[in-house]
Amino acid sequence: MSTDVSPSAEATAAILVIGDEVLSGRTKDKNIGYLADVLTAHGVDLKEVRIVSDDTDAIADAVNALRQRFTYVFTTGGIGPTHDDITADSVAAAFGVPIDVDPRAVAMMKERYEDGELNEARLRMARIPDGADLIVNPVSKAPGFRLENVFVMAGVPSIMQAMFESVLPLLEGRTPLRSVEIETDIKEGDLAGPLGRLQEAFPDISIGSYPGYDVTRFWTNVVLRARDPDRLAEAEAALRTLLAELTTQQKEDE
Amino acid sequence: MSTDVSPSAEATAAILVIGDEVLSGRTKDKNIGYLADVLTAHGVDLKEVRIVSDDTDAIADAVNALRQRFTYVFTTGGIGPTHDDITADSVAAAFGVPIDVDPRAVAMMKERYEDGELNEARLRMARIPDGADLIVNPVSKAPGFRLENVFVMAGVPSIMQAMFESVLPLLEGRTPLRSVEIETDIKEGDLAGPLGRLQEAFPDISIGSYPGYDVTRFWTNVVLRARDPDRLAEAEAALRTLLAELTTQQKEDE
Repeated sequence: MSTDVSPSAEATAAILVIGDEVLSGRTKDKNIGYLADVLTAHGVDLKEVRIVSDDTDAIADAVNALRQRFTYVFTTGGIGPTHDDITADSVAAAFGVPIDVDPRAVAMMKERYEDGELNEARLRMARIPDGADLIVNPVSKAPGFRLENVFVMAGVPSIMQAMFESVLPLLEGRTPLRSVEIETDIKEGDLAGPLGRLQEAFPDISIGSYPGYDVTRFWTNVVLRARDPDRLAEAEAALRTLLAELTTQQKEDE
Repeated sequence: MSTDVSPSAEATAAILVIGDEVLSGRTKDKNIGYLADVLTAHGVDLKEVRIVSDDTDAIADAVNALRQRFTYVFTTGGIGPTHDDITADSVAAAFGVPIDVDPRAVAMMKERYEDGELNEARLRMARIPDGADLIVNPVSKAPGFRLENVFVMAGVPSIMQAMFESVLPLLEGRTPLRSVEIETDIKEGDLAGPLGRLQEAFPDISIGSYPGYDVTRFWTNVVLRARDPDRLAEAEAALRTLLAELTTQQKEDE
């Protein structure tokens, strides 16, 4: 619930979470919130998230829909050793490129596995589409990969985060969004009209309001976001004046 | 990471989460995990989730893409009183139907608000597309609505859950999936081949494996899912035999 600010040149992103275990509720996704935080701090606007099942067509269709619309696409999940880990093959299908066991990936995995351990199942994790760059996996060695603007990462949060550390420096972010958050006792429904007019006066500031309540009271958090610290300060001053006026007015009405 | 079982007649669902605050990371979504759990328990297969920004085209496009492909679509978020709460209008646009303040919704809101409090902003929450049924909101009164197979609900988890309680009896679920989970010390990479063959022997059972590790050891959780308890028991017996054989074999190899 915040107005979208559209800068002239923006780096955008989408996340594609892959896995029946998330859709069944068995696994509660933790990667979306993490990536949302880090991308926002880095100045990349996360625009869409999708969660799809372990189905080649579902994965390939989503990859193709998202990679054409956003600067970056990040996938998580489905790159393990079992029969249902089909992300790499599905991404290759989406791009229409061949896929096979990649000697670079095998070399990385040999750091962890003895020769006898690199069975057919584990070698699935070394299947990399033609033309992809590898993303190192410092935790369990089996790498992710990057194909054009699509970054394919593990689903286990600790491994995904370790992979993303080497991805982040590759991304072109802008000046990160700065934000100011002010809590007020004015209820959201009383604030909405004046806040809409504040938004009209500051079209370059993203203004969001988030209602909260507990057993004792209602409140509203107002969040201002902008890349320009001076404009953010001007909007904050205007908001504080507005809230003071509304509070005074409410007391007079009582 | 589990094989998809395709029954003959299935009730499917998609979730559409609406809100810039989720994409920016400010709010960590809790509705997807909740709905995934309840839908799965009710025998409705959650097939896709999307998170989109507070943008009319993004919302309407997602609603139209999902409502044509799945039995049910559940949206959360964007039905509050502020300028950026545009879900109801966007859903009306998706269906190509008019939208206006609905007297039934106003009547519900009068249970909570005094006449003077029902200002223009709060009346936004009574905007309901033509032809929709209302979804009662026992927490804060402003209702959600159902238009054909699309259910529009609040984003605040406690309100969403209260709304969903009256939605759930309307859904046609099948026999819920039953599941059996077995933990083994066999690593996923050693288990993957035999598990793939077990899957071939039990094509009607969904078999998933989920690796875990901590500082002391690696393990794998194997999950079997099926609607038929007898078949599930057969698959469980076969899995236990398989795991015992693999464990014996590993000890002999050491």
